[in-house]
Amino acid sequence: MTKNKAKNKSISTSPPRGMRDFLPLEVHRRFYAIEIIRGVYESHGFEPLETPSLENISVLSGKYGEEGDRLLFKVLKRGDKLETALSKITAPASEKKAEGGASSGEGLADLGLRYDLTVPLARVIAHNRGKFPRLFKRYQIQPVWRADRPAKGRFREFYQCDVDIVGSHSPAVEVDLLEAAAEALQALGFDDFIIRLNHRKLLFGMLSLAGIEGEKAISAVTALDKLDKVGVDGVKKELEERGINQESIKGIEPLLNAPTGKEALTYLKPICMDNKDAQEGLEETRRIVELMENGPAGEQLAIDPCLARGLDYYTGAIFEIQSPALGVSLAGGGRYDNLIGMFSGEDVPACGVSLGLERIIKIMEELMLFPEVQTCPHLLVTSWSEELLGRSIELARLFRKAGLSVDTHFDPGKLGKQLKYAETKSIRFAAIIGPEEDQKDLITLKDLSTGKQETVSFKGALEQITSAFQIMGGAF
Amino acid sequence: MTKNKAKNKSISTSPPRGMRDFLPLEVHRRFYAIEIIRGVYESHGFEPLETPSLENISVLSGKYGEEGDRLLFKVLKRGDKLETALSKITAPASEKKAEGGASSGEGLADLGLRYDLTVPLARVIAHNRGKFPRLFKRYQIQPVWRADRPAKGRFREFYQCDVDIVGSHSPAVEVDLLEAAAEALQALGFDDFIIRLNHRKLLFGMLSLAGIEGEKAISAVTALDKLDKVGVDGVKKELEERGINQESIKGIEPLLNAPTGKEALTYLKPICMDNKDAQEGLEETRRIVELMENGPAGEQLAIDPCLARGLDYYTGAIFEIQSPALGVSLAGGGRYDNLIGMFSGEDVPACGVSLGLERIIKIMEELMLFPEVQTCPHLLVTSWSEELLGRSIELARLFRKAGLSVDTHFDPGKLGKQLKYAETKSIRFAAIIGPEEDQKDLITLKDLSTGKQETVSFKGALEQITSAFQIMGGAF
Repeated sequence: MTKNKAKNKSISTSPPRGMRDFLPLEVHRRFYAIEIIRGVYESHGFEPLETPSLENISVLSGKYGEEGDRLLFKVLKRGDKLETALSKITAPASEKKAEGGASSGEGLADLGLRYDLTVPLARVIAHNRGKFPRLFKRYQIQPVWRADRPAKGRFREFYQCDVDIVGSHSPAVEVDLLEAAAEALQALGFDDFIIRLNHRKLLFGMLSLAGIEGEKAISAVTALDKLDKVGVDGVKKELEERGINQESIKGIEPLLNAPTGKEALTYLKPICMDNKDAQEGLEETRRIVELMENGPAGEQLAIDPCLARGLDYYTGAIFEIQSPALGVSLAGGGRYDNLIGMFSGEDVPACGVSLGLERIIKIMEELMLFPEVQTCPHLLVTSWSEELLGRSIELARLFRKAGLSVDTHFDPGKLGKQLKYAETKSIRFAAIIGPEEDQKDLITLKDLSTGKQETVSFKGALEQITSAFQIMGGAF
Repeated sequence: MTKNKAKNKSISTSPPRGMRDFLPLEVHRRFYAIEIIRGVYESHGFEPLETPSLENISVLSGKYGEEGDRLLFKVLKRGDKLETALSKITAPASEKKAEGGASSGEGLADLGLRYDLTVPLARVIAHNRGKFPRLFKRYQIQPVWRADRPAKGRFREFYQCDVDIVGSHSPAVEVDLLEAAAEALQALGFDDFIIRLNHRKLLFGMLSLAGIEGEKAISAVTALDKLDKVGVDGVKKELEERGINQESIKGIEPLLNAPTGKEALTYLKPICMDNKDAQEGLEETRRIVELMENGPAGEQLAIDPCLARGLDYYTGAIFEIQSPALGVSLAGGGRYDNLIGMFSGEDVPACGVSLGLERIIKIMEELMLFPEVQTCPHLLVTSWSEELLGRSIELARLFRKAGLSVDTHFDPGKLGKQLKYAETKSIRFAAIIGPEEDQKDLITLKDLSTGKQETVSFKGALEQITSAFQIMGGAF
C-alpha cells in the first residue's frame, strides 16, 4: 500500500477526519445492534421516521446553543446563489460591514448536515400537523454530524437511535421512553448501567433562588454540565469566568454537593420550598421515580440534581444513561416542550431519549456481547476452465434456487487459490466441476472444515450442505 | 398549519428542496424493499460495506466528468481554515487572479457529500489492500447526494443499492452482478424489465474508426448518452455543437442506427473489423450474452450499441436496467478497471451495478407490489385515571414480557380519545383497567375490529390476542 500511495501523494485514501469505513464484520455487527434496538422500540409502539441528512440552515441555527452552532457542518451554496454570496464578501469593506459577519462565511451556506434527530422531528411535526395522531410515538435510527474534535470514541459522523413521544405532558411519557431505552440496552446484553435523572425546572428554579436568571442561567447550566469532568472546583471556576458573582455561586452550592441517589428527593425538598418552578420540577421527578419503581429500569434509576445536559432546548426532565464501570454515556435525552413551537408557533409537549450507537457497539465489542453469526455464504462454486465456466455458473444458480447462499469464483484453473478464497471468507463447502464431473453429471463437494471430499450428485451435495447447516427445506 | 406558519414566516418547515421526510408507512416500505435486496445480494456471496457520507473533496473531484463535478454538494471549511480561505478571496483582485478560480468558491470547501457508492469503494479498496481477499464482492446500500434540478422521481438525496466485484477480469463477473440485480428486482415483484448491455471499448473503438479520439471522444459519449431522450437528430446536433466534424458524425451513424436486439452482435461484427478495441469489446459482450443465456436474466438481456452511460470512469461493459412500460431506469452500472488505480497507483479490475431504490419504491407503490404487513402494535393499554396510571404501565410491561408489541396512552380519563388513537394506528385490541377491574384483578379487553368487549383475566386476554394474531408462544 505504501508503495502505491507514494505514486498518488495528492489523494489520501483515508476517510475524512473523525469518520470511518465499516468493513463487512463491522457492518454485520451494526445491523445486529440496530435490529435489536428497533425490535424493542417497535414493541413499545414506536413508529419509524426518517428525515433528510441535510436541513435548511434556518432550521438548524439557534437550536443547539453556542457550542452546537459552532459544530454544524454547513453546505456551500451552488451556482448563481454562490456567486451572489461571494460578491457580497468581496465587496468593498464599507458595504461588507453593513451586511455583518460576512467575514466568518455567513451567507455562503444554505444547508447544514443534521446535528441531531430531535430538531428534524420538531420540524416534521410542525409540517405535518393533522397527519399524525395528537399523541405520536416515533423512533429514528440515522446518522448525525458534528464538527467536534475527534477523540477516542468520539466521531464526526455517528448514529443516534432516538425514541420520542409528542403530544403529552404525562410523566408516563418519560417512563415509557426510559424503559424502552433500558430494555434495548438489556436486550443487547448490558446489565450494568445507571439512569441519571434531573429536571430543568428544578435546576433553573434553584439557580433563580441563587439569583441567577435569564441568559446568565443558560450560561451557568453550560458550566454545571461539566461537573462530571472538572469537579466542583472546576465548575465554580467556570461559573466565575462566566460572570456569575460569588454570592450566587455560594447560593448554588447545595446543588453542587447534593447526594446523587434517590435520597436527593428528600434532601432537595426543603431547599426548593421558595420557588414554584423548583417545586414543580421536584414533584415531576418524584412521580417519574414512583412510576418506574417496579419496572425493568427501576433499579438503574438515580436522581442527579447536578445533571445539566448541554442542549438549550430542554424544558423539563432530563436524563443520561451511563455505564459507571466504563465511565461513558450510552444515552441522553429529556423533555422539550417549546421546540416544536419554534416551528409551528404553537407549543406541543414532547420528550425523547437517544441511544448512542457508536459507544454501544464499542462496548459490546470489548465485552464480547456479539454472538457468532453465520453471515458467510454456505458454499463456493469454483470454476475449472474457461470452457466449463458456464457449467459452474449454472450450478451456482441451482444451489441458490434451492435456498442456499452461494459464492462463485471467476478465475478458472487456479483451484488452490479459489479454495484459499473460500477459507478467507469462512465458507465451509466448495463445489468443483472438472471435465470428469461434467461428463458424469456429478459434483465433487469438499468440506473445508474437515478437508474431506466426495463426488456426489447435485441432490447428494445439497443434502450434505443443508444437514451441515441444519437448514429446513425451503424454510430459510 | 397555515395559521401557525404565519407566525414563523422566517423558518420554513419543509425539508430542503429535492429531499423528503419519510413517514412511518413509507419507512416500513423502504425497510421491506431494502431487506429483500440485501437478502438476494447476500445469497450471491456479497458482503456489506459502509462508508462515510462525506469524502475529502480530493477524493470526489474529477471522477464523475463535467456534470458530476458541478452537482457535488460541498461542505464549507470551518474555523481558522475558513478564515484563511476567505482572506484569499477577499484579497485584492491582482492576488486573486493569480490563485485562479477563487471567485467560484474554490478553496472554501474541504469535504463533499458522497456522489455515488463506487468512488468510495475504490478508495476503500486502495486503502485496505491486503485486508480483503484479492477477489472481493461487496454490497452497499446507502444514500448519495446530487445537486441536480429536482423533478418527478428525481431527488437530491437518494439511496443506491450497489453490488461490485473487485479483482477479476472474467465476464462471469458481469453475469453474477446482472443476475443478482435481476433476481433482486424479481424478488420485489418486477417481471417486466430489460437489461441494456453495451461496452465502452466497442463504443470508443467505433468512435476511433470515425476519427473521434481522446477528449473529443469523451465529449461525444456524453452526447450519445442522450439518444434515448433526444433521438438521432438531437444527438447529431449536440455532436456538432461539441465540435465533432460532419465526416466523423457520418462515421458513427452505423452506431446510431444499429438494431437494439441481440442481432446487434452480427450487425456490428463486420463494422468492428478494423479496430482492435472494438473487436475486443464485441467479443466480451458476446461472451456475457452466452453465459447469461439460460440464467434468470437471459430473456431480459438486450444489446444496445448506443448505450453510453455518463460517468467517466467506465472502461468495459456498461449496462442499464429499464422498465420499458414505465420508461424509467431502475439500475445502471459497468466495468471500471482504472478507477482504483487512481487511488492506489496500481490498476485493479472492478465492475458493479447499482439499483436505484427511489424509483423501485415508486413503481412498487404504483403497481401495488407491497404486501400488507403487520407493523402496528398488537394492543393499546389505556389509562383510566392518574391513580391507576401505574397499574396501566405495569400491565403494558406484562404483555410486552409475554412477547406482544404494546402501545400505551398517557391521557387518563379520556377513554374515547384513547380508543380513537388506537384506530388511527390500526391497533386491533385495547385493554382497559378501571377501578372495578383493578379491584378484581381483571382486564376489559376490547376488540376494535368487532367492537366486542369482555372482562377477562390477564391470561385470558393474552390468549385472545395471540390467537387473533396466530402468534405461537414465544416464537415471534
